[in-house]
Order: sequence, then structure tokens, then C-alpha cells
Amino acid sequence: MRRSGDGGAAKKKKKRSASAASERRPRADGGMRIVVPLQGVVQGRGGLVLGSLIPCALFYFFQLYIKRNRASPPPPPGSPTAASAAAVSPIHRSLSRGLLAPRAALPAISARGASVRDDDSLYYAGLRRCAADPYHPATNPSGIIQLGLAENYLSLDLVGRWMEEHAAEAASMAGGEDEDERELSIRGLAAYQPYDGILALKMALAGFMRQIMQGSVSFEPSQMVITSGATPAMEILSFCLADPGNAFLVPSPYYPGWDRDIKWRTGIELIPVPCRSTDNFNISITALEIAYNQAKKRGIKNIHLISDEVFAGSTYGSGKFVSVAEVVDDLEDFDKGRVHIIYGLSKDLSLAGFRVGVIYSYNESIVTAAAKIARFSSVSTPTQRLLVAMLSDQKFISDYLKVNRERLRKMYHLFVDALDQVGIECYKSSGGFYCWADMSKFIRSYSEKGERKLWDRLLEEAKVNVTPGSSCHCIEPGWFRCCFTTLSEHDIPVLVQRLRTITDSHKPNR
Amino acid sequence: MRRSGDGGAAKKKKKRSASAASERRPRADGGMRIVVPLQGVVQGRGGLVLGSLIPCALFYFFQLYIKRNRASPPPPPGSPTAASAAAVSPIHRSLSRGLLAPRAALPAISARGASVRDDDSLYYAGLRRCAADPYHPATNPSGIIQLGLAENYLSLDLVGRWMEEHAAEAASMAGGEDEDERELSIRGLAAYQPYDGILALKMALAGFMRQIMQGSVSFEPSQMVITSGATPAMEILSFCLADPGNAFLVPSPYYPGWDRDIKWRTGIELIPVPCRSTDNFNISITALEIAYNQAKKRGIKNIHLISDEVFAGSTYGSGKFVSVAEVVDDLEDFDKGRVHIIYGLSKDLSLAGFRVGVIYSYNESIVTAAAKIARFSSVSTPTQRLLVAMLSDQKFISDYLKVNRERLRKMYHLFVDALDQVGIECYKSSGGFYCWADMSKFIRSYSEKGERKLWDRLLEEAKVNVTPGSSCHCIEPGWFRCCFTTLSEHDIPVLVQRLRTITDSHKPNR
Repeated sequence: MRRSGDGGAAKKKKKRSASAASERRPRADGGMRIVVPLQGVVQGRGGLVLGSLIPCALFYFFQLYIKRNRASPPPPPGSPTAASAAAVSPIHRSLSRGLLAPRAALPAISARGASVRDDDSLYYAGLRRCAADPYHPATNPSGIIQLGLAENYLSLDLVGRWMEEHAAEAASMAGGEDEDERELSIRGLAAYQPYDGILALKMALAGFMRQIMQGSVSFEPSQMVITSGATPAMEILSFCLADPGNAFLVPSPYYPGWDRDIKWRTGIELIPVPCRSTDNFNISITALEIAYNQAKKRGIKNIHLISDEVFAGSTYGSGKFVSVAEVVDDLEDFDKGRVHIIYGLSKDLSLAGFRVGVIYSYNESIVTAAAKIARFSSVSTPTQRLLVAMLSDQKFISDYLKVNRERLRKMYHLFVDALDQVGIECYKSSGGFYCWADMSKFIRSYSEKGERKLWDRLLEEAKVNVTPGSSCHCIEPGWFRCCFTTLSEHDIPVLVQRLRTITDSHKPNR
Repeated sequence: MRRSGDGGAAKKKKKRSASAASERRPRADGGMRIVVPLQGVVQGRGGLVLGSLIPCALFYFFQLYIKRNRASPPPPPGSPTAASAAAVSPIHRSLSRGLLAPRAALPAISARGASVRDDDSLYYAGLRRCAADPYHPATNPSGIIQLGLAENYLSLDLVGRWMEEHAAEAASMAGGEDEDERELSIRGLAAYQPYDGILALKMALAGFMRQIMQGSVSFEPSQMVITSGATPAMEILSFCLADPGNAFLVPSPYYPGWDRDIKWRTGIELIPVPCRSTDNFNISITALEIAYNQAKKRGIKNIHLISDEVFAGSTYGSGKFVSVAEVVDDLEDFDKGRVHIIYGLSKDLSLAGFRVGVIYSYNESIVTAAAKIARFSSVSTPTQRLLVAMLSDQKFISDYLKVNRERLRKMYHLFVDALDQVGIECYKSSGGFYCWADMSKFIRSYSEKGERKLWDRLLEEAKVNVTPGSSCHCIEPGWFRCCFTTLSEHDIPVLVQRLRTITDSHKPNR
């Protein structure tokens, strides 16, 4: 279910957060608001429903809860946007550095601006190293193999073909029969549109999401706010749910980007709730009850559930993805206004560059506020129009989802086998772009430092970039998140050879 | 130069802000940070340079500073984004209201979320009314004429024609000669790209901005952060420059949207610095000195200048727009790291729906932090590519800018003459989309209430939506911001007839 890999520092972080939280007194104006998350429930669905001694709104992430394969784990901690802060142009930035004031003499930046500027982790460091020296079999065979970026290149050819074939339609966006029609047409494209997305795209997205959930649940366009990616969707939703100083409990290991997406501008704290390999990285009902009771003692109220479902269409096991929308539909006397879903097209349609995310909420207040804030994160109208056309192409969408699942399954097995060849075991997955790999037997000291050393050797000697568990707040050292969807089959033997240089040099330490 | 129009409530607001500010003690960690803005300097350029008894970083908005026509006023308080929160789908939101929890029973929303949800002003109220019942000569002849939205429809035909003619190019974005090339091509389009904009677009924008400034200044792509509109550009820059509780001094009247764009999520205060009609709505060096000295007494440091130049290419007077970039280029021993420019394509290229804004800064720290935060406000890659093609089409851009200026000039004069026919005088403008109209002689009581009553009659009886000065924090009642660029020539007689129903019924009260 979950992955860990860290220990020292992450434990410290956890302790600090927890103690900071326990020192915090409930405030007169409402008290601290805590969301107890649950990513990938292992208990059966009946268990979830019947076992709701705890208010059902207790669950935070519900990512991949497989119907048939109930005990099978969800993918490693991933996200809509495990993206490349690295890609932020490390090269051209320096082109005219001379024109910029030297850092020593720099005038003020706000305290929070400086904190954002200086924020970094191995996750980003690895992405940057890779962006500066990316592996390519022909043009840069000694470059770094990227296993750290949450992208899927496996089915981009399908998207590319659709784009080529439908260019003419895209063109007609600005045309029309007569002058009046042309004016209306270009006005609809170039002029201001609703900041939270055009209705046509909301309708198309609602249909697409329903299709991904295999028709088992419907989505209402009116409960939807469209944003420029799942990253701002999560940020905007967090802003609307919690005030500065409030906290979210997040089962760890979790997606490294959340420390940035949720904390940077909202002032919300993230308190990792560690899951362990001995529990198969699952959160149990017991763990939730403990967390809930602790929260109650601290005067907590207003518990919400955010379900991040960005990988809903990227499952490849025998089970079907179940949206939290389907779960709450089955519940009676349940306050749906505490349930919110994050979705996006970066993962399931491989369209990370299109920057399209969705907040889906049953809470009218949240929808209203989020729609207003969406003015800071709107999607350009030409892109919205293009997506309406793409999502409405039923044949393309069906074919894409089917073929993509097959390719994900195939690459997953190739990758797991490859790691197995060099003695690295992976957690079983049935969805998403990652494997959660246990490399603890290859670290010299069982600590975050040991993990970091291995990460460094993988990057600098083997030229393979992976995400260390510490970046995901995993409390057990030696686990690594490895993305397999940016690889091609030809890369596998190269990868095995490179990993072997590291694994062969290590005597297993336990 | 500036417009006013309000009095009672605005004055109260001003007082409250000022007294709140004076009660605030400088903090140990740096003190309050105040930016003294100056929108449209009237003093000659020499005056600005020589008169810098005050640190030059004292100027906030520098919008339209006309070289030759030094005494001529800039356009009324406008903005990159005087847009339609109104457009936020007031109709379809209600489609399934039954599915949403009733407001009375709603569970928590954060305090700040509720504040955003409930935030409103006449500016938005008017936009909403208009969006629900828009005037159209044929299909809705009794609908409301929109003079409140900062859009330019005058040259959309040119943009539309370009879009039609270049659809083929847009199509080729995803193509290629062989498989490798096609893969690279779709990867460049669909996969993650730098969040702060692709280099090609930064280069194209730098060229476009230089062209708009008539070649008198160059812009460095490396000092640029691209965002999804000038709205998030302003928000992100504000976030990086100031901390919660810090304040910006903004000469009023100012763009109503700033209360939202700068305050909502950043926690920064805006303190209006009132300009008066007796001073031609100008800020003088003396006024700046007073503001600066008051700021110093409160322990202020770190004064920055943000110059909002979104109307740089939309001048129609005899003068040339002068960017603050050109001014600081001429200064010696000047700390450029305190100067920042906001730009965007919504105004000068009529592409509001494309959502493209720019932060341009000489401060490396600010650029670095803003580029990271741009991940919440990225422009989709297909749109970036389309814009690279459009901005690189030299002939189109030159023709567009020239024709657009001519059309702006023509419509401005038609509009001013129309208002003159019914006894309404406008401030002389030479750029932007608005007139700043003095209707004080038509209000019954010289107060914000009187202004509001007139606004209400204009909207409900004459069916004309204008922005009241109070929404712009103007301290003199009776001034209104009127956008003339969404009108066609045929609308002018209708507008005159409608305004006459109001003006004829009023005896001038002074």
C-alpha cells in the first residue's frame, strides 16, 4: 500500500510537527482544522462503510482502492504534478545574469518569497541534475536516466496522432460562415470567459470522468472548478478549506510536491502520519481512530476528505478504480459537503503540458469560493476548446484508455522484472506510474544519511535519478519511488546494467 | 491623470486604513513594507529624474507616461484584468443546485474562503447584471450596454483572421518527418515544460514588448516569468515582495480588481492614496515626499516600484509610451532590483481569453521565487506555441498595432462626443480602453450614496453598466469609469438616447 524509507530526519520532522500541533490551542474562532487522510484504503468496501465509527469524512487520500483486488496496493506516492521545478530553465536563466543585481547586494524579498526561493529537496535536486544531462540512447548515451518525473510517455503517440488529424477542427475555432458568426467565434476564443472553465469543457470532463469510473458514478458540471493543473486545484481547495496554522494529516510516504503545493502560499501545515512496511504501508481503521481521537482532544472540528484521483484512469490490475464519489453515493445521511475530489488530465491523458486540473466538490460554498480564486489559475480558451473536441471523441478516448492500460501493465512488469534481476524488490502495484522499490539492503547505514548516500551513488555513478523515500516523508530508510512510464523498452537493459554497478558493489547489510 | 468619485464611504475606508496602519508597530523582523505608487507621472521626465529627492523606487504604478504630451492624462484606472467574475457561470451553477448541500446546513469553509466567497462590490454586481442580460442590437435590443468590462473588441477581426490563416501551422505542432521527430514534437507539446514559460515564448514576448516601446528599450527573457494572465502576475509578484500585514500605497482611483488580486490570498493591505480632481488627479512629488516621510516614521523599509504596463501598446495620443525600464536604464547608481513590471496580452493584443501575463523583474531573487510559484499559474503549451507563431509574425503584429491604435483613437473621440451631447464631460485620455467621466452634476446628494443611486439608475433605467468611482476608491463622488472598446459605432446613438433619459431628468445640482 504505502512506501516508507527514511527514519532519522523524517521522524524528527514528524515529532516537531506533532509537538507544534499539540502546543497549539484551539482558537475561539473555530479551532484547528485537521484532515485525517487515508490514501488507498485496504479494508474492504464494506469495511469502510460499516466501520465508520469514525465520521466518513475522515479519509484524505483514497487514491487507488481496487474493488476485486482488495489487498493489492495502490501505486507509490505520486501526484498529479510530480513535475519539474527542475525544468525551470536552469540554463537560459544564466544567459544574462550579469544584468541582474548580484545576490549579495540584492534588495528585499519578502520572508515567504525567500522561503520559496530557497526551498529544495533531493527530489528537486535530482530532477534538475537530470534535466541538465538527460539520457538519450543515441545523442546522450551516458546521460541520466529519469525515474523521478511523474510523466507517461507510453501513449503519447496516440495523443500526437489525434492532434495531427484534428488540426483542421482546431482551425475552425476562429472561423464562421458570415461576418457575425466569425465575430462571435473569435470573441468566444479571445475574449474573457468564465475563469473557472467554460461549460462545454466541464461537461466534457464530467463525461470523461464518468467513463474512467466505468459508468458507475456521475459528475455534475456545476460542482466543478477547472484550474491550470491539479497543482493549483490542490492549492486552491486547501486555501478554501483551511486557514493559516490549520493542519492536514497526510499518511506518509506521500507525494513530495505537497510540501510545496499545499504549504507555500496557504500557510497550512502538513503533519505526516507514518505508515510502515510491517503494516504493508496501510493505514488501518485503528490508526484512523487514534488520529481522530487525538484530533478531538485538541479541539478539532471541521474534518474534510480530499480524494486525489488523478490516477483513476491509469490502473492496470484486474480491479476497477472506485471514486470516493461512488462511495458517498452509497451512504445515507452522510454530509457530502465535506468531500472533495482532485482530478486532472496530466496523468490519465498524458497531457501534463496542457495544465488542466479539476476541483470537484459537493460543497456549494467551496465551489463558489474556488471558482473565484480560479481567476489566478485559468486555462486558456484555445486549449479548453481543443480539449472539448478531444474528450468528445468517444472512439479516441476509449481506444486511448484501453491501449494505455495495456502499455502501463506491460512496462510495469518489464520494470519490476528488471529490478528483480539486480536484487531489488518492488511493492506490488496495480495503478499509477511508479514502483515503490525496497533498496534498504543496499544502504550502508540504516538511516536517512545512508539512504541519501545510495541516492547520490545512483545519480552520480549509475546515472539513474530516483526519488528517495525521505522526500516522501517515509519513516523507513531505503525505499525509493521509481517512475517507469518515461522509459522505453530499449532502455531496460541499460537500466539493469547501470543498477548492477551499484548493487554488485554492496554486500547486503541485513 | 487620475479619477476620483466617491467621498463618504471611500473617505471612511481611507481613514480606517490609515489609522489601522498608524497603529501598526514596526516589527522586529523587518517592519512594515510599503510601496508608494505613482500611476502616470505628470511631471516631465526630467522632473522625475532630477526630482528624485525621494528614492526612485518610490513609484508604484507608472502606467501611461507620455513623452511629448506630458500634461495629458493617462487612461482611467484600468487593469490587465478588469474582467468578469460576472462571467463565472451564474446560470449553469444553478442547474443542479439541488445536489449541493443547502447553504444553511453547509459545513465549514475556511475563514478566508468565506471572505472570498462573500466578497463583492458594485463593480462585480454590474458585470453580473450585464452578463445576464447583454445588449445586442438584433437579438436583445433592450439588454444592458456594457461599459464596465476592460476588453477590446475593436480589432478582434484581425486576430480572428490570423487564427484562421495559421491553423495549418498550429496543426504542425504535433507532426514531424519521421517517428523520432514526431515523438519529440508531441513530447514538447504534451509533456511537462518549464512552469514559468517556454524560452521561445519569453523571447517572442521580449521582442513584442520592445516593439511596443518603439525599440527604445530591450527586455531580457531571463528576467521574465510568464503566468496565466496579468492577474496572477500581480498576485505572485506581490506575494514575493511583501509579507502578510505589509501594505502597498496605491494612488486612487485605482482598478477595482486589485482589492481582490492583491489582497485575497497574499494578506497584503492596500492603502489608497487619494488623488483629487483639483490636482487633475495627479500625484505630485510633494505628495510622494509626504507619503515617503510618513512611511519612514512608521519604520518602513524596502520600498519597491511595480509598474503596470498592460496598456503600453494601446496608446492613441501623439505621444509615445515610456516604460519604467527605459527610465531606469537612464539612471546611474540606481538599484534596479527594486523595479518590477507587469505586462500581459489581454489588452494590447485583445487576447484576454488566452490568459497570458508577464512578471519582468531586475531582481534575481524575485525572478527565482516567482518562477517557482508560476507552477500554480502556468499557460498551456499549445497556447504558448500558438503565441510564439503569432508574435513572431512581424507583419501581422505591426499591422495590428497600427490599425488598433487608429480604431482606439476613433472610438475614443466618438465616445467622448457622445457623452458631451448629453452634458457629461470626460477627462482627456490618450491611452487605454476607458474614459473617466464626471457625472457629479447629475447626482442628487454629493456623496457615495448619491453616486450609487445614479449608478443604479444608469443600470436599471438606462440599461448602461459603468464602474462607479467608489469601486475604484476615488474619494470624490460622481465619477465613473466607462469602457468604450466593447462598443461598435452603431451602438453610439443607442447609448446617447439611453443616457439622455437620465441626464434630462436631472437638474444640475451645482
